[in-house]
Amino acid sequence: MKTHTLLMPLDMHLHLRDAVMLENVAPLSAYSFSGALIMPNLVPPVTTIEDVKAYKERIIAAVPNDYFEPYMTLFYKNYDKRFLSEVKEHITAIKLYPAGITTNSEGGVSSFDIEEMRETLDAMSILGIPLCVHGETDGFVMDREAEFMNIYDLLATNFPDLKIIMEHITTKEAVAMLDKHKNLYATITVHHLLLTLDDVVGGMMMPHNFCKPIAKRPEDLDALLSVALEAHPKVMFGSDSAPHSKEKKECSGCAAGVFSAPIALQLLCEIFEQYDKLDNLQAFVSDNAQNIYGICPEFKEVILEKRPFVIPDTYNGVVPMYAGKIINWAIESIE
Amino acid sequence: MKTHTLLMPLDMHLHLRDAVMLENVAPLSAYSFSGALIMPNLVPPVTTIEDVKAYKERIIAAVPNDYFEPYMTLFYKNYDKRFLSEVKEHITAIKLYPAGITTNSEGGVSSFDIEEMRETLDAMSILGIPLCVHGETDGFVMDREAEFMNIYDLLATNFPDLKIIMEHITTKEAVAMLDKHKNLYATITVHHLLLTLDDVVGGMMMPHNFCKPIAKRPEDLDALLSVALEAHPKVMFGSDSAPHSKEKKECSGCAAGVFSAPIALQLLCEIFEQYDKLDNLQAFVSDNAQNIYGICPEFKEVILEKRPFVIPDTYNGVVPMYAGKIINWAIESIE
Repeated sequence: MKTHTLLMPLDMHLHLRDAVMLENVAPLSAYSFSGALIMPNLVPPVTTIEDVKAYKERIIAAVPNDYFEPYMTLFYKNYDKRFLSEVKEHITAIKLYPAGITTNSEGGVSSFDIEEMRETLDAMSILGIPLCVHGETDGFVMDREAEFMNIYDLLATNFPDLKIIMEHITTKEAVAMLDKHKNLYATITVHHLLLTLDDVVGGMMMPHNFCKPIAKRPEDLDALLSVALEAHPKVMFGSDSAPHSKEKKECSGCAAGVFSAPIALQLLCEIFEQYDKLDNLQAFVSDNAQNIYGICPEFKEVILEKRPFVIPDTYNGVVPMYAGKIINWAIESIE
Repeated sequence: MKTHTLLMPLDMHLHLRDAVMLENVAPLSAYSFSGALIMPNLVPPVTTIEDVKAYKERIIAAVPNDYFEPYMTLFYKNYDKRFLSEVKEHITAIKLYPAGITTNSEGGVSSFDIEEMRETLDAMSILGIPLCVHGETDGFVMDREAEFMNIYDLLATNFPDLKIIMEHITTKEAVAMLDKHKNLYATITVHHLLLTLDDVVGGMMMPHNFCKPIAKRPEDLDALLSVALEAHPKVMFGSDSAPHSKEKKECSGCAAGVFSAPIALQLLCEIFEQYDKLDNLQAFVSDNAQNIYGICPEFKEVILEKRPFVIPDTYNGVVPMYAGKIINWAIESIE
């Protein structure tokens, strides 16, 4: 039977939430990934050293049986250099949300006044702390990411030594930015390598395929596939796996977020094999992230096997993407 | 208190379904409208004189206490002239669905081969039977209606004496067609005068705002408003009110359809007043349809009053658009 081995897979954009949800979903990521960049949009958001340390401890306590490194992030506000120097050893990046743009982002940045942000971003540049950005304006839903490109231009130009990661990119415009600015990088989710808006509202309306940024047009999907399948060195896998309870997804006003963590590696194998690019998956799912972030995860070997796998209806009560669907790859063993 | 009177309001695109759902929703339309063009996409669709007569009887039986004219339609297939001559007195129009494009449309047209349709459409031209069209291709969800314009071109050019109604138009491209072909007309829903895709998936995902064709971009909304508010003589109100049970709307794969019939007149007053165009509403909601279809509804006078009105959570168990929202107009009396 055909197998494929991945070493130290990393999920460079993950929502683990807190409390019961954390306990439900953290073990699923810890099972198959060596580590993950943990998003800080809790209620209230993670903004202090104490917050970071306490959240990290809660994550580790939720995954007692697996080696799993939570690469912690801080919720972007304007911080001074002294604080950033102190927090640096506890975090891997700082995550910037435009205010109100997605789940629990109310305390984010409400205007991109570069001068107001200069002290913080200069300090991050000097200290080598990457800036992760949810790049959407508050415009029309299909235009939000493309409209944000001029803010990436502004950030990349004003802070040439700052590593800026365009998170969960969904458009050809964002893909084009990778070659425009030396200091721009990107994460891509697995669902954005599979879905367009047609899979959200083109047939029945599918709340479990609904996320922010929303899946875009076929030509955007093609652009994302082009850099992911080649494992463009500035591109990394980040699932943006975002669990919500079934009640919050299947209702009259459904929360945004696709829950993909437990099936991400299987789906990635399926996609990369389909395009005869399995050899590039290791770089997309681990090596590029190690290079970009300068991180060295401990050894973990995941062997996937090509055989039919029925995606469960729920994982610990949370409905995953493609629930009930049969895919062609399954996890065979993990060491 | 400010009031506005509408005479013989007509809903020129209505789904009443059948059986229990028919009994639940037909009285709501019959209460405030003089008549409605009844869509034929039952399971199986309405394709014979017997189907038309029996469905009309079921509708009338469901609204015993109100004067309400169900203007019946036939589901488009290729019919011969003899049959069309016989069915003519029982129907107001024939409705064409591309196969599989929306709820219960599986038996529709799968390729627009004009020569295969010529006998039917020539006969309809001669007999004066209008053709109502659900104008969407099977392309990307945001492009489906615009892509269909070349089929409207083909139909309008090949059958210059056929009245063709572009149903529930949602795009600036469809609006532009009104001035391009003498024999093209259109219906516009109330929800497409209020919503864009932002109201479907721009914030939370809103299944009760989800319909086919899907609400499009802000510039499309502007184009629709421009012809509706002026009561363009080739444009009529058609709600496309499409009830589904709450269970089919709030779930993991939600059915398409906005249920607006019981609040349509109130919302139309609100929209037309907002743009200071209340004087044009009578033409949009009745006079234009009377002229286009040559129909003469019996007298009905609906007086609306400007006062706060809370849209109910359900009407006979069906969740309406804007449930729970307060709007500014209510129905005061009906004679």
